[in-house]
Amino acid sequence: MTSMTVSDESGVSVGIVGFGVFGQLIAGLVLPYYRVDVCDPDEDQAVVAERLGAGFRSLEDVVSHPVVVLAVPVAAVAEVARRIAPMLKPGTLVLDVGSVKVLPARAMLRELPSDVDIIATHPLFGPQSARRGLAGARIVLCPVRGRHGHLAAFLRRALGLRVIVTTPEGHDREMAVTQGLTHWLARALVGMEASEPALSGRLTTASFDLIREAVGMVRYDAPAVYEAIGALNPYAAEVRRDFLKVASRLDCELDEAFAERPDLVCVG
Amino acid sequence: MTSMTVSDESGVSVGIVGFGVFGQLIAGLVLPYYRVDVCDPDEDQAVVAERLGAGFRSLEDVVSHPVVVLAVPVAAVAEVARRIAPMLKPGTLVLDVGSVKVLPARAMLRELPSDVDIIATHPLFGPQSARRGLAGARIVLCPVRGRHGHLAAFLRRALGLRVIVTTPEGHDREMAVTQGLTHWLARALVGMEASEPALSGRLTTASFDLIREAVGMVRYDAPAVYEAIGALNPYAAEVRRDFLKVASRLDCELDEAFAERPDLVCVG
Repeated sequence: MTSMTVSDESGVSVGIVGFGVFGQLIAGLVLPYYRVDVCDPDEDQAVVAERLGAGFRSLEDVVSHPVVVLAVPVAAVAEVARRIAPMLKPGTLVLDVGSVKVLPARAMLRELPSDVDIIATHPLFGPQSARRGLAGARIVLCPVRGRHGHLAAFLRRALGLRVIVTTPEGHDREMAVTQGLTHWLARALVGMEASEPALSGRLTTASFDLIREAVGMVRYDAPAVYEAIGALNPYAAEVRRDFLKVASRLDCELDEAFAERPDLVCVG
Repeated sequence: MTSMTVSDESGVSVGIVGFGVFGQLIAGLVLPYYRVDVCDPDEDQAVVAERLGAGFRSLEDVVSHPVVVLAVPVAAVAEVARRIAPMLKPGTLVLDVGSVKVLPARAMLRELPSDVDIIATHPLFGPQSARRGLAGARIVLCPVRGRHGHLAAFLRRALGLRVIVTTPEGHDREMAVTQGLTHWLARALVGMEASEPALSGRLTTASFDLIREAVGMVRYDAPAVYEAIGALNPYAAEVRRDFLKVASRLDCELDEAFAERPDLVCVG
């Protein structure tokens, strides 16, 4: 079976563990440049792999490539890393692609052999936005062990991505605010829709229309994505608490302002 | 002085009480069709009125027109209505233009003479959006006393607006959700900026960019506008409380999900 995973002339080939929507997106992006093998517990994905031009192989085969991408849910990274650890060749580069970076980076560092390089990544685009082209799209690289220059160069030159290099902590701290607040507030608005039909009503302003559009972009995300962003980012809870504190204070101030307007409030 | 407010050939002329940004916007929209006189406590606005082609007159003159628009802050509607009540001619049509409708409609009904018609209105556009043209822009009409057909026809045919007719209660109930939540949440995000530099940072997603754009549209609104939307809408407080309840429940659920992931959380 190993003969099936021989790399192309450049010496690089890529194995993708997990062939959900994100694994498929990555395969599609990489296939014009490198040979790609994928694996997934769902055997039906073999048809999708064949259509894209990727090999559908066993986990052992897939992780024998020089570059291995863990396209699995954040909550599964530790378990998958532990499982593939004994199969990896020295010098392999292992990447993950989830929405949070501190916990997966720690898990990979803990589970993977010390002769394996690790880069935690977060593509700030998804299948939807990639369909409109990747020009200007961004990806975050968090080098965990080993060098990241070759990967960054490929992402920049071949895929045209903007590469942002930071630490897992730096990533999660910023993302707890931007992504964490967005997904949580969006979920709260979705949760109010049943009792507040106005949320999907006609009396809207331009600013609310933007918020409704933002909610529409994340409302159908997989539950695992929402949970990773909100529960597996160690800074997210504190940001939510800060937001609730500020919002509650403003709520009280508005209540007081209401109470101070007897002239308008009382009915004559 | 009354000769200065004689109506044009159509028999209609408009007086605008309050010549801030919204009064000026209305004057600009109406002037191609009808004679307009305006008044404002700030005498410097006379220059702006002259430049637009509107007369800058006394309050008495302005409210002698067949149509009188109260372009004053929501919190001032009751006081202005009380003051102009003895000056109004029978059959005058009085409009307001603020962001909430229940309390101003009640105040006008209470303060204005019974031989005066009243329509509470809320243009769902502002000076910024009007500059790009009013095509497709909307205005809410809440008939309080008398007929509104002529006004609706003018707004539709002459200005090209979409006219939505509802009650003050219907308006405020929907707006408590769309406008009320938007302005309050935006203000909370602005309030977090000092402690969370990530809010203006580079690690953003497409959905967060939309939210940042929405915040940008309302963050420089006058404090009186924010207060009217949040404090002078009788349904806004309940909507904020509902939102805080849902958001807090989701916050707890995410905390629990975090606690249930010992595998990823513990450092090996």
